[in-house]
Amino acid sequence: MSWFDESIMARKAVAKGKPGEHHTITEAEQGIYHYVYGAFVEPKLHVQPGAVISAETHDAFEGKIKHETDKPSEILNFPYLNPQNGPIYVEGAEKGDTLAVYIREIKPRGEQPSGTTVLLPEFGGLVATGDTAMLNPPLPERVKKLYVDAEKGVKWNDRITLPYEPFIGTIGTSPEIEAISSLVPDYYGGNMDLPDVAPGAVVYLPVNTKGAYLYLGDCHAAQGDGELCGVAVEHPTVTTIQVDLIKGWTIKTPRLENEQFYMTIGSSRPLEDAARQAYRELTRWLAADFGFEELDAYMLLTQCGRMRLGNMVDPKYTMGASILKSIAGPYQG
Amino acid sequence: MSWFDESIMARKAVAKGKPGEHHTITEAEQGIYHYVYGAFVEPKLHVQPGAVISAETHDAFEGKIKHETDKPSEILNFPYLNPQNGPIYVEGAEKGDTLAVYIREIKPRGEQPSGTTVLLPEFGGLVATGDTAMLNPPLPERVKKLYVDAEKGVKWNDRITLPYEPFIGTIGTSPEIEAISSLVPDYYGGNMDLPDVAPGAVVYLPVNTKGAYLYLGDCHAAQGDGELCGVAVEHPTVTTIQVDLIKGWTIKTPRLENEQFYMTIGSSRPLEDAARQAYRELTRWLAADFGFEELDAYMLLTQCGRMRLGNMVDPKYTMGASILKSIAGPYQG
Amino acid sequence: MSWFDESIMARKAVAKGKPGEHHTITEAEQGIYHYVYGAFVEPKLHVQPGAVISAETHDAFEGKIKHETDKPSEILNFPYLNPQNGPIYVEGAEKGDTLAVYIREIKPRGEQPSGTTVLLPEFGGLVATGDTAMLNPPLPERVKKLYVDAEKGVKWNDRITLPYEPFIGTIGTSPEIEAISSLVPDYYGGNMDLPDVAPGAVVYLPVNTKGAYLYLGDCHAAQGDGELCGVAVEHPTVTTIQVDLIKGWTIKTPRLENEQFYMTIGSSRPLEDAARQAYRELTRWLAADFGFEELDAYMLLTQCGRMRLGNMVDPKYTMGASILKSIAGPYQG
Amino acid sequence: MSWFDESIMARKAVAKGKPGEHHTITEAEQGIYHYVYGAFVEPKLHVQPGAVISAETHDAFEGKIKHETDKPSEILNFPYLNPQNGPIYVEGAEKGDTLAVYIREIKPRGEQPSGTTVLLPEFGGLVATGDTAMLNPPLPERVKKLYVDAEKGVKWNDRITLPYEPFIGTIGTSPEIEAISSLVPDYYGGNMDLPDVAPGAVVYLPVNTKGAYLYLGDCHAAQGDGELCGVAVEHPTVTTIQVDLIKGWTIKTPRLENEQFYMTIGSSRPLEDAARQAYRELTRWLAADFGFEELDAYMLLTQCGRMRLGNMVDPKYTMGASILKSIAGPYQG
Repeated sequence: MSWFDESIMARKAVAKGKPGEHHTITEAEQGIYHYVYGAFVEPKLHVQPGAVISAETHDAFEGKIKHETDKPSEILNFPYLNPQNGPIYVEGAEKGDTLAVYIREIKPRGEQPSGTTVLLPEFGGLVATGDTAMLNPPLPERVKKLYVDAEKGVKWNDRITLPYEPFIGTIGTSPEIEAISSLVPDYYGGNMDLPDVAPGAVVYLPVNTKGAYLYLGDCHAAQGDGELCGVAVEHPTVTTIQVDLIKGWTIKTPRLENEQFYMTIGSSRPLEDAARQAYRELTRWLAADFGFEELDAYMLLTQCGRMRLGNMVDPKYTMGASILKSIAGPYQG
Repeated sequence: MSWFDESIMARKAVAKGKPGEHHTITEAEQGIYHYVYGAFVEPKLHVQPGAVISAETHDAFEGKIKHETDKPSEILNFPYLNPQNGPIYVEGAEKGDTLAVYIREIKPRGEQPSGTTVLLPEFGGLVATGDTAMLNPPLPERVKKLYVDAEKGVKWNDRITLPYEPFIGTIGTSPEIEAISSLVPDYYGGNMDLPDVAPGAVVYLPVNTKGAYLYLGDCHAAQGDGELCGVAVEHPTVTTIQVDLIKGWTIKTPRLENEQFYMTIGSSRPLEDAARQAYRELTRWLAADFGFEELDAYMLLTQCGRMRLGNMVDPKYTMGASILKSIAGPYQG
Repeated sequence: MSWFDESIMARKAVAKGKPGEHHTITEAEQGIYHYVYGAFVEPKLHVQPGAVISAETHDAFEGKIKHETDKPSEILNFPYLNPQNGPIYVEGAEKGDTLAVYIREIKPRGEQPSGTTVLLPEFGGLVATGDTAMLNPPLPERVKKLYVDAEKGVKWNDRITLPYEPFIGTIGTSPEIEAISSLVPDYYGGNMDLPDVAPGAVVYLPVNTKGAYLYLGDCHAAQGDGELCGVAVEHPTVTTIQVDLIKGWTIKTPRLENEQFYMTIGSSRPLEDAARQAYRELTRWLAADFGFEELDAYMLLTQCGRMRLGNMVDPKYTMGASILKSIAGPYQG
Repeated sequence: MSWFDESIMARKAVAKGKPGEHHTITEAEQGIYHYVYGAFVEPKLHVQPGAVISAETHDAFEGKIKHETDKPSEILNFPYLNPQNGPIYVEGAEKGDTLAVYIREIKPRGEQPSGTTVLLPEFGGLVATGDTAMLNPPLPERVKKLYVDAEKGVKWNDRITLPYEPFIGTIGTSPEIEAISSLVPDYYGGNMDLPDVAPGAVVYLPVNTKGAYLYLGDCHAAQGDGELCGVAVEHPTVTTIQVDLIKGWTIKTPRLENEQFYMTIGSSRPLEDAARQAYRELTRWLAADFGFEELDAYMLLTQCGRMRLGNMVDPKYTMGASILKSIAGPYQG
């Protein structure tokens, strides 16, 4: 028995974590990709809880940056960035429910070098931006193309090859009444850029509107904590997820579970607010579902909580607070 | 000749600041108010540049909070807050243009006491919120109803009457592809809660999509800097604006002009980023249209720039940086 | 009878706001100026409550920047910046008391052009710094020397002359056990760079250690909100203050009173924390000494509070929250 | 050959990483512990580079909190908190040099239960504080005493025992002219509360003043990322360090090296500034000493940088940015 059989998804979701019908969303089937998270468009797919979906994701630049001599500021057309697959309508999902998304596999696709990272003007963690507005001159633009191989890794240069550690940069449900850029992370998920959203993990997302309207895209072949320059090793993939539905379990912000830990995810500015958001939610989760008194949970996380920096570059910054399952103890929710 | 005849609106806009046809948007005509800034709905009104529009605005709670014994958390239905009039489609407006909105008049309407301020859980500048997440217990909810009179002012208690200094809390154009909650201020305007957006001022707003889709609402009878508890003296009004269009003038973020000063408005988090945004834009404006060398403008604003705190409570904080017209000198744009 | 006769200083201080003995601290008498706020040095002066002190202050660069062709980074020797007069030992002052400093006069002195403003590398509100660390290239250094005249004002260029509106950029007491750079503002005062600390105002400062150890310096001939590039119109002065002592009145952070308003001053990062600090203290002051119930004060400040941005460039940012005396009502403390 | 023989300390320091004379600083020898980092006191010890020093550290409360029924706010006497051993004067150290401190061992001492964690009013990551000032009511005070054993771990309750993972919470050199509370982390080290400052690591600290004046204390038996409630498992120890001196190597902020990685440490507010500080320094270090072009280093860290959250509760927040040695490649400095 794997840990997954004991996951919250397997215990509480409608399909009990059992895989159902397999769907595909190829590039051709997707047709038009989306740049906002909202419910103003027709769903691309209607699925039952348990559905397994393999989606051909684009890279964040929709494959437009092909050569190291390309000039991104001339090629890219803001705000038409970070194209998303979906939306996927989950039958039975209603406001107040939670979507469980088990990430089964991410495989690179596309012509080599299929990986792309770039320096963009006014974007990144160590440059002046539209928000952290400065008068300093900008850095030069720069494009780096990389060979990405699931086994051999991501080739940086002759000496350095990084392991292929793919994850989904952007995934989430639709807000209730808004349609928000896929560049933004928030309470419904979105552009969290958190490396733990990787194969083997279950992401829990709040359902805000009937059918949930699940989107995903923006897979990264490798990324450090914070996604420092704003652009990870972006690459096109075939990403396979299994979607399930937990009725009547209401969460405020995304959560995550894998073999090792439970995590809560906060997205906000300044960065300490993302951290506070994540840690408060984890504190309250321990109190709600693991038998801790709230202030005891607060004191315990002080001694053993872990914090992962997702991004420090997007419109909101993202952090994930976690606790080892061995410490949290059995789930009682 | 008033200052307005020399305003940028009068000099550069299509209708030269001359009032055109008069339209109304009564409560009945508006019918359904809106809770997002977007272009996914049918315009309520199509107008030519120069149009004068009198709109019956609701208060931010749509008039639902009537008594001091009401419990807001039971009455209000998030995210259906801050109802907006519009959208108003401005003929000829295209992405890259600027809308000029001259605020002609704000008159209180509605039954007395028509003013409302409340303490809401998890909202406000001196309480824990969903972003600045804390474990401290919340404050009690509280409602205060106030008599609002255009001449006599806003009666706080037997001793204190505040002057009636009305302004438009929320006004803006639609984002290009998004639909964003009317609770949010951003580059397109929105919930800035900046007291300078008052009768006698011209607000300049970037046009992001064909027709501009102008929204407005959320008028305040009085408000201090920062809108500390998150809720000013909210009240229903008849607000009259004159809308004009400046073709080919592209601004990144809202600007404002009145008899005394030119202002640029930034909305971001943390608060210093709102300030940086506003001051950088003002620096660059002085360089672009007033004959200053950029670094000289930067040094000059150090000695005479003024900064108004709009809100420190909304999803983004808002600040307005300004310079006296007497110092800026003649507009040369 | 002037407002000052009804000031808290006049009502509560040991000398009742009456001027006592007159002391001077000329350049020669000061000898060595100080770069930290602390109690590790011998007091320059021992005074009784009521003492009037005229100090010859240096500019923030100790007069070393004399020509527009000077290169500040070669001339200045960090951390030996922002030289301070004092410390002044106030007889009878003990931890838990409050010092009242009435600013009587600031007069420019020194050879013309006596005003100096500069662009320094890695310092300022719109440039990358050691904290808001960026990889962008720095701005060029630049020096501007200005004629400063108490009557004619501060001459910026042939067209622009700014009014002479002097204030004390840096003033405060010693921390209890620390010695902190005069570049820092904090709970004891220090480098607040708040234009309201001007002639005609009374500043209230917490006494943290026996004798208070009052320092002052860094007078500005003109400054905008935020001191944008980090360097106001720095100039040497003769500054005259009257120092009094309020026994048993304990304040956490600096306060200020003038003819118009009561103000509380917060210094912190991010900027919203400075604002929160100032507004919470003002809320509590209204509750403690003006007869308001705390939450009513919170709601009232929402409608009429004023916020002044002092600096957005120093190691901590400074904001001053104020309320008009006409609204606050009679002081009852 | 261990990694240490190839460390920067072993390559570049005066004593080549070889242990020299052994000194002790017992409680009795220390006598008076210190609450500020400064050079205004007599050194406790003068040592040569290479010196091994075993210090009996107090817990952060100087052992005053003995029972779970104690009320910290009545027992503790702010600012006399976080007592430090030292200062240690290192012969030959001058401004512009770097101190290398190899942490050899941390052993718990004292009567059981020797571990202490508490909830203090206005202190912690999920409560209103003096900076993030709120009107919400405070949490209750609380004391938890824990059994700490180097082998058996830290006993939380009958079910949970955390591993004993000790580190030095506070360590650093004196600032040049200041004396700063031991509660503060900054460019000279201080109260970083970063769990990587553990046995087996070398910490590099800038020398700001002749003799360096090294202080240390505040050892933690266990701590999660961020030290959430502000108080880790505080405990008294015997901590053994080996101090060496690198002449002419000037660093701005603390760095760290262990078997796995190189790290740079930033302390600032808001939290993103701590992250920026750390990552910029690491980017520049890779450029200076590892043969990377600066922007290539920036792009590489985007893909593989790691960020550890030290504290999100102290007057400045601390983060450590690191890169694996296997990726950074051979040190060439």
